[in-house]
Amino acid sequence: MKVLVIGASGHVGRAAVAALTAANHEVIAASRSTTPSVDVTDPASIEKLFEQVGRLDAVAVALGDVPFKPLAELSREDYIAGFNGKALCQLDVVRIGTPFVRDGGSFTLTTGILAREPIFTGAAASMANGALESFVLAAAVELPRGIRINAVSPSVLAEAEGYHSSFPGFGQVPSAVAGRAFVKSVDGVQTGKVIALEGE
Amino acid sequence: MKVLVIGASGHVGRAAVAALTAANHEVIAASRSTTPSVDVTDPASIEKLFEQVGRLDAVAVALGDVPFKPLAELSREDYIAGFNGKALCQLDVVRIGTPFVRDGGSFTLTTGILAREPIFTGAAASMANGALESFVLAAAVELPRGIRINAVSPSVLAEAEGYHSSFPGFGQVPSAVAGRAFVKSVDGVQTGKVIALEGE
Repeated sequence: MKVLVIGASGHVGRAAVAALTAANHEVIAASRSTTPSVDVTDPASIEKLFEQVGRLDAVAVALGDVPFKPLAELSREDYIAGFNGKALCQLDVVRIGTPFVRDGGSFTLTTGILAREPIFTGAAASMANGALESFVLAAAVELPRGIRINAVSPSVLAEAEGYHSSFPGFGQVPSAVAGRAFVKSVDGVQTGKVIALEGE
Repeated sequence: MKVLVIGASGHVGRAAVAALTAANHEVIAASRSTTPSVDVTDPASIEKLFEQVGRLDAVAVALGDVPFKPLAELSREDYIAGFNGKALCQLDVVRIGTPFVRDGGSFTLTTGILAREPIFTGAAASMANGALESFVLAAAVELPRGIRINAVSPSVLAEAEGYHSSFPGFGQVPSAVAGRAFVKSVDGVQTGKVIALEGE
């Protein structure tokens, strides 16, 4: 299958690319620095990317840019930035990309454990993740032509060592496990599901 | 206790006011049409309201303005409007209102069953509700001075007959039951909880 992975340069995106490639998919990895490139904060850039890559079997999105600050320091602008940087851009990919996905194809979004568990400075991230997880269950019942949608919602990645101290005692998800979740969503039959990865 | 209810003119807001009043609280009901009035889409108006009412034991917010459209018709602007109209305004109330709430006081937000179950045309509403429900669990661990925060998340209200056809087969929540959930949040000890009301 031809699978577009948007946000292919981050920890989760690289894991998705590796696992989908290993599963014998033709993977098109897209980020700000690839050719074709994409800036997910710009709907016109998303549109252009889809026009360049053409017909797809599946789309995976693995990105998110959210302010991490103590609750007392989170401003209105921070909440808006968190919504835009993690939720709205993924909503845009689904909205703009749907016509390019074949009948029975799929979208796989990336959320995270902060949708269901708190960490210090994580309120805006929790909010953005929660938005996407509820969107997924709602969009699943209305996407046309049998197109499916799921979210991969991992705890901190084992390989993302710089983040471990922010997730004290949390299970850590090996990249290979996170990647496998994308394969489950792309090759499976589920829709409207949050694939929660608690780590080990 | 002195309890400010913002969004006091809707079905849920009226239920909250009635139940909190019956529980012997001093309830200040605020909406666009009350004195003092509030426009929750305007942070300056929220700020002014809190300055007018002064020190509070609890704040309840029962409002939300979200576009309901088939998924294929939801535009980028609709998602932004849904986020602003239901989520951001409640985030603003918490952010702006925290200094006015006494030690050990509380916030109670209003979400809804669409965070966890889909209806046709409900994707933007699901998204906004999910954002708030994950925010609540995250904010609960960082609010200062023992201030608590919960969300009341009801199915369609029994008295909101105009909405029943959009929720086929869903349980319906009597207004008195919805109101009681606000009393549970205000007078109880829970924090970071979604009080899910499935109806009957």
